[in-house]
Amino acid sequence: MPQDLLLKNIRPMGGAATDMLLRDGRIARIAPDQAVPGALVEDGAGALAIPGLVEAHTHLDKTLWGMGWIPNSAGPRLIDKIDNERRVKKELGLDAERQSGRQLVQSLRHGTTHIRTHVDIDTEGGLGAVEGVLRMRERYADVMDVELVAFPQSGLLVRPGTLELVDEALRLGCEVVGGLDPCGIDRDPAGHLDAVFALSQKHGKPLDIHLHEPGLLGAFSMELIFERTRALGMQGQVVVSHAFCLGDADAAMVNALLDEIAALDIGIMTTGSASRPVPAVAQLVARGIRVCSGNDGIRDSWGPYGNGDMLERAMMVGLRNNFRRDEEVAMALAVCTQGGAEIMRLKDYGLAEGCRADLVLVAAESVAEAVVAHPPRALVVKRGNVVARGGVALVEAP
Amino acid sequence: MPQDLLLKNIRPMGGAATDMLLRDGRIARIAPDQAVPGALVEDGAGALAIPGLVEAHTHLDKTLWGMGWIPNSAGPRLIDKIDNERRVKKELGLDAERQSGRQLVQSLRHGTTHIRTHVDIDTEGGLGAVEGVLRMRERYADVMDVELVAFPQSGLLVRPGTLELVDEALRLGCEVVGGLDPCGIDRDPAGHLDAVFALSQKHGKPLDIHLHEPGLLGAFSMELIFERTRALGMQGQVVVSHAFCLGDADAAMVNALLDEIAALDIGIMTTGSASRPVPAVAQLVARGIRVCSGNDGIRDSWGPYGNGDMLERAMMVGLRNNFRRDEEVAMALAVCTQGGAEIMRLKDYGLAEGCRADLVLVAAESVAEAVVAHPPRALVVKRGNVVARGGVALVEAP
Repeated sequence: MPQDLLLKNIRPMGGAATDMLLRDGRIARIAPDQAVPGALVEDGAGALAIPGLVEAHTHLDKTLWGMGWIPNSAGPRLIDKIDNERRVKKELGLDAERQSGRQLVQSLRHGTTHIRTHVDIDTEGGLGAVEGVLRMRERYADVMDVELVAFPQSGLLVRPGTLELVDEALRLGCEVVGGLDPCGIDRDPAGHLDAVFALSQKHGKPLDIHLHEPGLLGAFSMELIFERTRALGMQGQVVVSHAFCLGDADAAMVNALLDEIAALDIGIMTTGSASRPVPAVAQLVARGIRVCSGNDGIRDSWGPYGNGDMLERAMMVGLRNNFRRDEEVAMALAVCTQGGAEIMRLKDYGLAEGCRADLVLVAAESVAEAVVAHPPRALVVKRGNVVARGGVALVEAP
Repeated sequence: MPQDLLLKNIRPMGGAATDMLLRDGRIARIAPDQAVPGALVEDGAGALAIPGLVEAHTHLDKTLWGMGWIPNSAGPRLIDKIDNERRVKKELGLDAERQSGRQLVQSLRHGTTHIRTHVDIDTEGGLGAVEGVLRMRERYADVMDVELVAFPQSGLLVRPGTLELVDEALRLGCEVVGGLDPCGIDRDPAGHLDAVFALSQKHGKPLDIHLHEPGLLGAFSMELIFERTRALGMQGQVVVSHAFCLGDADAAMVNALLDEIAALDIGIMTTGSASRPVPAVAQLVARGIRVCSGNDGIRDSWGPYGNGDMLERAMMVGLRNNFRRDEEVAMALAVCTQGGAEIMRLKDYGLAEGCRADLVLVAAESVAEAVVAHPPRALVVKRGNVVARGGVALVEAP
């Protein structure tokens, strides 16, 4: 039987100090002044407790983390970056298993307890990355939950053979069907969306579609997604990642899209990109739309930024959305915790009794301070066990 | 005679490893394998060396740093924030001398060696903040250069008596005349600009005007600034801070403004705000326009963000401008170093022999890595002396 863990003197969501007993991987009891014979005890020293951070959109398989500095040389267009990436991966002999493990440990030390990762599938790399990430997931199963999206990064139809590989990846264990810019990359929006929705139906797995297309073009792709979601009865099973068209200046267009998104219970992922139009988080939340966030790729051939910290990501979301009041900053954190949990359909997520014991302690007076200062995490707990302390992971990276 | 300081095994701007001798507050010699009898020696361990970071736009006098967490409650409009701020300052009894010292030390530990700070002057606080920051500057004169902008935050004409206070502040030692949204706050753009240009002429001091006004309104204020700059022969002596109108989608309007800005040698300050339209740094640099950056207010009644780190600010500028290639990221750093030095008219700034010995060592392979990772500064040197080490300032904050 695993040992109980008693967290003394912690402040859930910045509230009053209390103690929290973790037992059998769950939050068993939240009450002050607990004494539990035989339990391991951690002194929280008044730290803020938040639920485990949810990295709901990243690309573990292709980070360059830990490989020294590799200068970035990609051209400006999306397709330049896609083509450059396949070249870089080949030249560097990028090992998806090793690299995804490195980013996972980096995420873990920053308090992430759940990851949704889009794994590249193309006719050059085949299923190598999927297989690598699946092995990595097995290795770190005790300390992190990882969900794989079968992601046709280089296009699904435009490179024949990819569709069959994605189909196979879903059979191998990927939980989610990925899609990508139906107009921009495959150049056949109806064809692309028919194909990914068909895969989703065939495997009984939900969809997560990258949609960078801005303005009217993105709105058109969105409408095609609405039509298929409605026709196939897939309400609640589709996520659109980035959704830059929702950051368009044409408020009437955006509002019409949001009406449909709310009606079809489509989830939205935003990184709070500083350089692109982005969905307005407060507007989405007010309509009851599920919103999550992620770091997207960190230090990869697409760009050099990022470190895997979802508290820093919450700050970015806050900055991008001009969140200044404490309750607004708290909304940015909710997107990086509860919002991600809803998108990933996590059961028993949160800080209530009975919830799974995945949580983070951070030295901050308030939720807002935790977001803006994002100091090293005092303690990270996964399945009731301490997995990082003082910003340092207790598991080794490959 | 001050002791020589020999920095061994450092890589200026990420180039080849060398040694650097600092003598009498200057860089005396850059060459490998130096041995200097009697010199203090610091082992750089191959660290990257960059010139001292330049914080070219902040508000030292009103940070809440070190005062515990103070929830943010300001309304959404600019004038809400201005009015809320005067209230908060009074309620908290904000001490400009103490608070500016706290932010200064915070900046110093992150490698900033020069600061331009806009100090509030209004009919409620009078010259209290200016006097406080002047005393603080005196106290830390050995470790930081601070330049004061006499800044009428609550309006210059709209609150009678303010103009006289700004005039007095310039007599007391403020180096720069500040202005603010000539349409938006004083509601009399010609009157406001006539007044600040007159102060500038009277005191023989340059101008730095906050211009948040977006789009056509900001463009109109810009044109009024152009007219006065040209008529008074003040080319090279005017800075416009924020300049959100230069981030407008109307490229023809923006290009016409940039033509004039270049012709009149007007400097531009951008924080790379994620939530507002911003000047495109690469476009400005390509036209030869001087561009600097700053953290603006950190953790104050305007908003909770910021920590005084100008390397992190360079990352924000890079993210906002979608800089991904190494040379683009290096441009973001140049804005936070050389660009600030140009705006502040610093003499002998840089890493060449003969330059002032103000510099930073950071463990990074390349300039781009220093920006995106911004690890704690290994060493900060001001006037040839070590003032921070391992991210910790060697002077005490108040």
